Amino acid sequence: MGEQHIVQAFDQELRDITGRVVESAALAGDLLARAVAALAKMDAAVARAVIADDRRIDQMQREVEERAILMIARRQPMARDLREIVAAFRIANDVERIGDLAKNIAKRVVALQGQPQPAELIDGLQRMAELGLDQLSKVMAAYSSRDLSLALEVWTQDEWIDARYTSMFQEILDHMIAEPRNVALATHLLFSAKNLERIGDHTTNIAETVHYLITGTPLTDERPKQDGTVMPVPTVG
Amino acid sequence: MGEQHIVQAFDQELRDITGRVVESAALAGDLLARAVAALAKMDAAVARAVIADDRRIDQMQREVEERAILMIARRQPMARDLREIVAAFRIANDVERIGDLAKNIAKRVVALQGQPQPAELIDGLQRMAELGLDQLSKVMAAYSSRDLSLALEVWTQDEWIDARYTSMFQEILDHMIAEPRNVALATHLLFSAKNLERIGDHTTNIAETVHYLITGTPLTDERPKQDGTVMPVPTVG
Repeated sequence: MGEQHIVQAFDQELRDITGRVVESAALAGDLLARAVAALAKMDAAVARAVIADDRRIDQMQREVEERAILMIARRQPMARDLREIVAAFRIANDVERIGDLAKNIAKRVVALQGQPQPAELIDGLQRMAELGLDQLSKVMAAYSSRDLSLALEVWTQDEWIDARYTSMFQEILDHMIAEPRNVALATHLLFSAKNLERIGDHTTNIAETVHYLITGTPLTDERPKQDGTVMPVPTVG
Repeated sequence: MGEQHIVQAFDQELRDITGRVVESAALAGDLLARAVAALAKMDAAVARAVIADDRRIDQMQREVEERAILMIARRQPMARDLREIVAAFRIANDVERIGDLAKNIAKRVVALQGQPQPAELIDGLQRMAELGLDQLSKVMAAYSSRDLSLALEVWTQDEWIDARYTSMFQEILDHMIAEPRNVALATHLLFSAKNLERIGDHTTNIAETVHYLITGTPLTDERPKQDGTVMPVPTVG
């Protein structure tokens, strides 16, 4: 097998693995959109389909992981080639967790069915989810086109989701205080908001991986990430 | 360099990386113990030290990850040797997240300082943390001694932590309903309980990795994991 043939085979394997990662991220975005639509309509059937479909993402992640390890072992790639494989491996891992978090929201819809929904809180969660989906689709575009400035844009904009989470957190607490009988329901909404905030974190991780892929250096130390509900003492009514 | 020399060098690298993973898990256990002690005494100084020390775990994880990738690339290990490296890589990742979750509890202590503490809820969290620490120390013993039955014991006993979480969840909701003015505080305790439950999940992941390391087959499909607060509709007072 000639040198050029080996290079072509490697490039083909790399395209396959990268394609699989992009595909799994599209599926994760789809699950998230459906989970939040299920929440808005309290549609348990849609929620159950989301729960079932998450298995496909898990399977894709395991497949990417296995292929990545075998590629490293067989081809001993260095520098940029090695980073390409490590990046696919890491992004598949973040995508798998985004799928899990979408599934978790869907499970809460199943738990909540039939209960009255505070419309303004559901609206707030939907807006958070839209922001999360927008960030996910941007960061995957940055990955596909190796666009460093787009990755950095996603990275800095994670604070928008954090800010929205901090405000949702306070709104949900206010609702609990005003309607103590609704605390179980409000708690599920609170965890859903937290899940959306964590989806933002994974999207930020992907942006960091794209940065590492393109530049070869990490972007972890100056991360803007801040969960505003953890550090300050929240005011109670 | 003779064959035996290469084998010895590989074994030494493997011992180094495995030792680093065991060390990082010990540090994560230490952070968790200190985070929960800080919660019990509402000691913000201890909590801040936990937050600072978590960086060491992050650093160790990155180091294990880099070394593992280089070992795979340079030595092209197959079968059991490859599984050893993949296992170190995965366990370091779970340990890093256990450290993050302990840090998150510590951050909530900083947020909560000066607020009145419902003693029975704090006690419940402490018992959950003890169970979590016990499971973590067992699974790392299973990893160090390649003890399959001990790994399986940890794996099946994760349901104890889940059961305790489900009961804590209900107790904290009851507290919110009884004391609506305390919802902000109770919410931090609820997230702390959730963090402890997730620490149990990562410990279970480590047990699965030990199983894969020893047997070469995955143990993911029949996983006992169940967050009892998500699926059933919780009763409200």
